[in-house]
Amino acid sequence: MLPGVGVFGTGSTARMLVPLLRGEGFEVRALWGRSEEEARSLAQELGIPFHTSQSDDVLLHPDVDLVCIYISPPLTRQIAVKALGIGKNVVCEKAATAVDAFKMVTAARYYPQLLSIVGNALRFLPAFVAMRQLLAEGYVGELQVCDARVYGPSLLDQSYGWTCEELMGGGGLHTVGSTLVDLLSHLTGARAIRVHGLLRTFVRQNGAIRGIRRVTSDDFCFFQMLMGGSGSGRGTGTGSGVCCTVTLNFNMPGAFVHEVMVVGSAGRLIARGTELYGQRNGGNGEELLLGDSEGTGQEVKDVPLPHLRGLGSMVKALKDAFQAQEERRSWVRGPVAMASTFEDGLYVQTVVEAVKRSSRSGEWESVEVMTQEPDPNQNLCEALQRNKN
Amino acid sequence: MLPGVGVFGTGSTARMLVPLLRGEGFEVRALWGRSEEEARSLAQELGIPFHTSQSDDVLLHPDVDLVCIYISPPLTRQIAVKALGIGKNVVCEKAATAVDAFKMVTAARYYPQLLSIVGNALRFLPAFVAMRQLLAEGYVGELQVCDARVYGPSLLDQSYGWTCEELMGGGGLHTVGSTLVDLLSHLTGARAIRVHGLLRTFVRQNGAIRGIRRVTSDDFCFFQMLMGGSGSGRGTGTGSGVCCTVTLNFNMPGAFVHEVMVVGSAGRLIARGTELYGQRNGGNGEELLLGDSEGTGQEVKDVPLPHLRGLGSMVKALKDAFQAQEERRSWVRGPVAMASTFEDGLYVQTVVEAVKRSSRSGEWESVEVMTQEPDPNQNLCEALQRNKN
Repeated sequence: MLPGVGVFGTGSTARMLVPLLRGEGFEVRALWGRSEEEARSLAQELGIPFHTSQSDDVLLHPDVDLVCIYISPPLTRQIAVKALGIGKNVVCEKAATAVDAFKMVTAARYYPQLLSIVGNALRFLPAFVAMRQLLAEGYVGELQVCDARVYGPSLLDQSYGWTCEELMGGGGLHTVGSTLVDLLSHLTGARAIRVHGLLRTFVRQNGAIRGIRRVTSDDFCFFQMLMGGSGSGRGTGTGSGVCCTVTLNFNMPGAFVHEVMVVGSAGRLIARGTELYGQRNGGNGEELLLGDSEGTGQEVKDVPLPHLRGLGSMVKALKDAFQAQEERRSWVRGPVAMASTFEDGLYVQTVVEAVKRSSRSGEWESVEVMTQEPDPNQNLCEALQRNKN
Repeated sequence: MLPGVGVFGTGSTARMLVPLLRGEGFEVRALWGRSEEEARSLAQELGIPFHTSQSDDVLLHPDVDLVCIYISPPLTRQIAVKALGIGKNVVCEKAATAVDAFKMVTAARYYPQLLSIVGNALRFLPAFVAMRQLLAEGYVGELQVCDARVYGPSLLDQSYGWTCEELMGGGGLHTVGSTLVDLLSHLTGARAIRVHGLLRTFVRQNGAIRGIRRVTSDDFCFFQMLMGGSGSGRGTGTGSGVCCTVTLNFNMPGAFVHEVMVVGSAGRLIARGTELYGQRNGGNGEELLLGDSEGTGQEVKDVPLPHLRGLGSMVKALKDAFQAQEERRSWVRGPVAMASTFEDGLYVQTVVEAVKRSSRSGEWESVEVMTQEPDPNQNLCEALQRNKN
């Protein structure tokens, strides 16, 4: 039996998610928006019976058993942790900081019977499911290099908001880079042990953001990860010693370029958008391994096609996880086993912060995943320290 | 009147160069090979009247007025400097080290009436000539990011030799990366002030190189350059503050991928192979700005098409520089003004060495172009120091 769903957020992902959920038979019972007006407007548009700007109204809603949180990063932790505490299953976006991600991990560990996943849709995209499978089967031989690039138009909202603010989780690295950090770890079965990066904000002001306001979040980012052994123990485990490079540029209006290439001793695999190509050394050039049967050119504004398609596959997996259960809140792990856990979310957030640190220091930075919550005063000291520079 | 040409080298570039020279009306009078046998074999194949393994025999040959040097980097300096001393015009490949490049600069300054260019063919490729022109005309607006990538099969020779040895100028960075360092400086009119890089040798042994022999030259290289003001004063001068990223991977058998992209505030230009594409922000997607009328698919083994085509354009420019002159050794600067000078060669070598240093130190390294020859004992100390690590 499928659970009733409460959706947090009124942005482009939430707007795409609702029809996808309905397409798989989920009932969307409630919508939360930052303001009453935003919530009402989208609820009317999508025909959602209940809307609110009070998060408790959704979390305590008796018909809501699964909560999907697609809101600004600084609010994610609070709502996700509360939802778990109330006994609801959670699919959410990344948090704003590693400390927030750590608090989410603690909550997820406390309620292991509840579903708690970070909804990185790329893991569910068929091209990457196939790529991971082929890597495990040795298509590329010994893995050497991963190279990911995403080019697209500006990620900034029309008006000033969290997307402009580095500290609120805005910017290409946090928004898109984090999905690639997660994906590369998932594909290689390894985790970054050291990272080096460079962030730039080329566009500091635009037509909508001017006067005393300035964009602090990155619109160009470039980082390298040296991968070590498996962190999660669930991957293919061949990724130790692999070099990953990621290039993000959001000063390139037009269609998104979304390309992930893995190169090994015996061949390579390349995901271009939603399609997967492969080439074996000594073979006759590139072969199409997986096309996109739904066709291309259906790009939704502001959302790369791989994310949209992946979201669809993730919703299907959610249906499979819940469907055969008698209880509305019960689920089985199998269909969503490939999802990013809150622990993965903490790892990703740790890498993102290490890349930012590296961009400031100019040096390689170690990726050390938090094992206990830092003293908040310690944190404050560091923030003050940093502001002095 | 076109000068008689002496060619040094029996590798793939020398082999391509001879027919190109003849196609423009040059007479190839003499060929030098490392061994008598290599020289004889290629001279017979190409019908060159004189061959030798003694460099002086070519340099002192009375019918040779222009010397083209395409040999292993450690031999380049010696022959180039001697050729200038004897009064011959010189087109050569890069040197092995910055110290060698510096000695070549000194010789070139001493004989300003002689032609002395580093034959980076990419500068002459019509796609890059057009890209540079469009950059100067503001097609991309304010330049922000350059991104170059070359993927291809192994650069190693069939047998063990300089291509396997980092210290002899082998490896992707030295062989191909240097042409991109030169090109990006030429395109942006700016020079790298700081670099960061990572080199890897994934394939240390193969069928031909085994036993106690190991490859030390890089087959994967990845570097970033932060560009400062103009070094040569000849560029478009808009490149200050630009980030350049270069990715080289020579573990990818099959056709070469050769792509250079420049992104600015108003649009972007992309050279894919020998073709140039552009996209203006707000425009209707990508437009083909310059096709390759000679068609593609004529890839010569071991040589990317852009190098082959660029070499053809360079030889044409050489013809134009010499043609209208009465004296066989006289030339005019105009047609070869866009060529890389020995000073540019020293800059490029300095960047290459800074990237290698960065790969060892893990830190950003400054690019400081040598202004006087270092004390050789100092050099020895540093080499000993490094070997201890």
